Amino acid sequence: MTFDAMFTAQLDDLKGEGNYRIFAELERRCGAFPKAKSHDDDAPDEVTVWCSNDYLGMGQNPIVREAMKAAIDQCGTGAGGTRNISGTNYHHVALERELADLHGKEAALLFTSGYVSNWAALSTLGARLPDAVILSDALNHASMIEGIRHSRAQKVIWKHNDPEDLDRKLATLPANAPKIVAFESVYSMDGDICPMQEIVEVAEKHGAMTYLDEVHAVGLYGPRGGGVSEELGLADRITLIEGTLGKAYGCMGGYITGSAALCDFVRSFASGFIFTTALPPAVAAAAQASIAHLKTSDLERQRQRRQVARLRAKLDARGIPHMDNPSHIIPVMIKDPVKCRMLSDILMNDYGIYVQPINYPTVPKGTERLRFTPGPLHSDADIDHLVEALTVLWKQCAIAHAVA
Amino acid sequence: MTFDAMFTAQLDDLKGEGNYRIFAELERRCGAFPKAKSHDDDAPDEVTVWCSNDYLGMGQNPIVREAMKAAIDQCGTGAGGTRNISGTNYHHVALERELADLHGKEAALLFTSGYVSNWAALSTLGARLPDAVILSDALNHASMIEGIRHSRAQKVIWKHNDPEDLDRKLATLPANAPKIVAFESVYSMDGDICPMQEIVEVAEKHGAMTYLDEVHAVGLYGPRGGGVSEELGLADRITLIEGTLGKAYGCMGGYITGSAALCDFVRSFASGFIFTTALPPAVAAAAQASIAHLKTSDLERQRQRRQVARLRAKLDARGIPHMDNPSHIIPVMIKDPVKCRMLSDILMNDYGIYVQPINYPTVPKGTERLRFTPGPLHSDADIDHLVEALTVLWKQCAIAHAVA
Repeated sequence: MTFDAMFTAQLDDLKGEGNYRIFAELERRCGAFPKAKSHDDDAPDEVTVWCSNDYLGMGQNPIVREAMKAAIDQCGTGAGGTRNISGTNYHHVALERELADLHGKEAALLFTSGYVSNWAALSTLGARLPDAVILSDALNHASMIEGIRHSRAQKVIWKHNDPEDLDRKLATLPANAPKIVAFESVYSMDGDICPMQEIVEVAEKHGAMTYLDEVHAVGLYGPRGGGVSEELGLADRITLIEGTLGKAYGCMGGYITGSAALCDFVRSFASGFIFTTALPPAVAAAAQASIAHLKTSDLERQRQRRQVARLRAKLDARGIPHMDNPSHIIPVMIKDPVKCRMLSDILMNDYGIYVQPINYPTVPKGTERLRFTPGPLHSDADIDHLVEALTVLWKQCAIAHAVA
Repeated sequence: MTFDAMFTAQLDDLKGEGNYRIFAELERRCGAFPKAKSHDDDAPDEVTVWCSNDYLGMGQNPIVREAMKAAIDQCGTGAGGTRNISGTNYHHVALERELADLHGKEAALLFTSGYVSNWAALSTLGARLPDAVILSDALNHASMIEGIRHSRAQKVIWKHNDPEDLDRKLATLPANAPKIVAFESVYSMDGDICPMQEIVEVAEKHGAMTYLDEVHAVGLYGPRGGGVSEELGLADRITLIEGTLGKAYGCMGGYITGSAALCDFVRSFASGFIFTTALPPAVAAAAQASIAHLKTSDLERQRQRRQVARLRAKLDARGIPHMDNPSHIIPVMIKDPVKCRMLSDILMNDYGIYVQPINYPTVPKGTERLRFTPGPLHSDADIDHLVEALTVLWKQCAIAHAVA
């Protein structure tokens, strides 16, 4: 069997299950977001993006764009090296200061992505703290799972968002083993938010450090965009807060914040930090401008909340079921990969509505869904159009209504 | 012991060995590269960067900068999602076509960094091809080592650049096990180049696929910058060519190229590809412009070779020993982490010459070095100044001359 035949056989399995992925090719149009030009033949020329993680449209914000362009003129397009070997620029250092301030921590450390920040930080902590045990929420993101796996530390999975289960599991561990409780604030695919206070109290009771992923919350929650931990006044009780620059901040990159010793430790030992080219200084400059803006401006968050509430209310009025949660993420469950893809195709081709089908492995099989992320730049008319389209499809496809 | 105390204890060990890293904070100045503004108190305001991997200065090339700025105006600062969920932009697709063409392959797949491309591709191939064995050159980069480790496939290390040892090791493996021979063209820290033809022939003899890392070669070798595999006419015999956009191309990101089935396989199964925000479209546009330029322009490469040869000749004339190799990388061995740091500090503070000390874990302990990467934008006067400074230091520090 040739290598290509081996690859093709596994791809055919994916196709048979309806889990083969086809990427929509878009051209975001600055100033028009969430509208985008589609390069797919079957779709209308202009579509409305309903599944972006550029949650506040900061990727087209003039302040952010101008900061990036100015830094290109100042420093060029790339960093030119790893952070250690000629790649540390003024803009990286300034951004790290901005991030430490955002979360009220001593220090921050930048990575090339949120994925890499989770993978590198957890694998380093788990591998280098002797006898460490990582207690991982059952629904943690792939990047955390891979980091824990890579660390080869003992891993204990606790029930999703269940502090009592965490408490029981912590109680079984040796008192002197370093324990790391890893969890998220906003879970990306269900949109639920963790019971942070209870988790922190359980961790404190057992002397465990807390590792909190706020990638779907930074910029969006808390008076300065410091995430759910800021909103709840808990940031100073979390050991490490991890976040991204690629979602609400509209750029690219990830980071951790915490004590100076913690950040220096990861900086000094994490392979995924040490052996990679630094973010372009211009990306760092753009991210810093975005964070600084959202520290003082609440308009984007207010408008986002309004549109999220509006879409939820309209879906309820039409009896279109969606997962209840307190966040900005509205999952509409389809529970079948083929139907999910079909609905997504019809929405795109007949209505100019782009919402990617969310299938395995992003969600467990049988929980396929459409995941809507209304933002401040979706108009009321956009919402009405989406709800009309879903209403028609709901009838046509005879998918069970919430109210029968 | 608190967590911070645990972190600090390990950092103190690093400091005791002389392996604690201090990043030089620079501000690259567009149009003036390799000159940069230093933000370090002890250094002169302006320094000359001698250790960048922006090998050809493409990070400040007006074509590349303008492409990036135009794409920011067109699409904004970030991709807004993973490649699957709203993050695929026209510019990503166009760049993947450009890369496939560069290496004469059917397809290409973009990653957020070269590190991630190696880690994700090798871990996916090793994990998903049943009974796979990965044969890894002894000096492969950390990103390949971590990817192989993460795959949990059987790993066999062969002697660096030794096709005979590879042949012997391949011969011991079961005939029907999928075998992956992983190696680099230009090795970053020693600057040596692999015997590619011999390695390819050995791999072909045993039916193994070849995985070639060309990150320190793309843009620099071959008539169109397709790397050493292009220069030697071997690209079509290599199964997978991996490269970076963050070094000679002056941007950020990594990629693999190969058959359509291979790229689709990695696209469909690699966690590190699937679960991460796509590169900013503007970075993709800049990289494409850089690649396209270096496909037709040989001036940068010619001028680089001239300056590399010039520095080597001047070092020889002064009896300053440097590792002999056929590439653009000039390592000057110091073999002690503390001396290496000290020489780097003196060069920076007294001469405005920035060359980062290369210590463990980037190189094995006892092989600490200064690594110079002359480029087309280093002037003859820059080279003369560097050689003068090294000559003075060589005498002062009483480090053995090559000619005693």
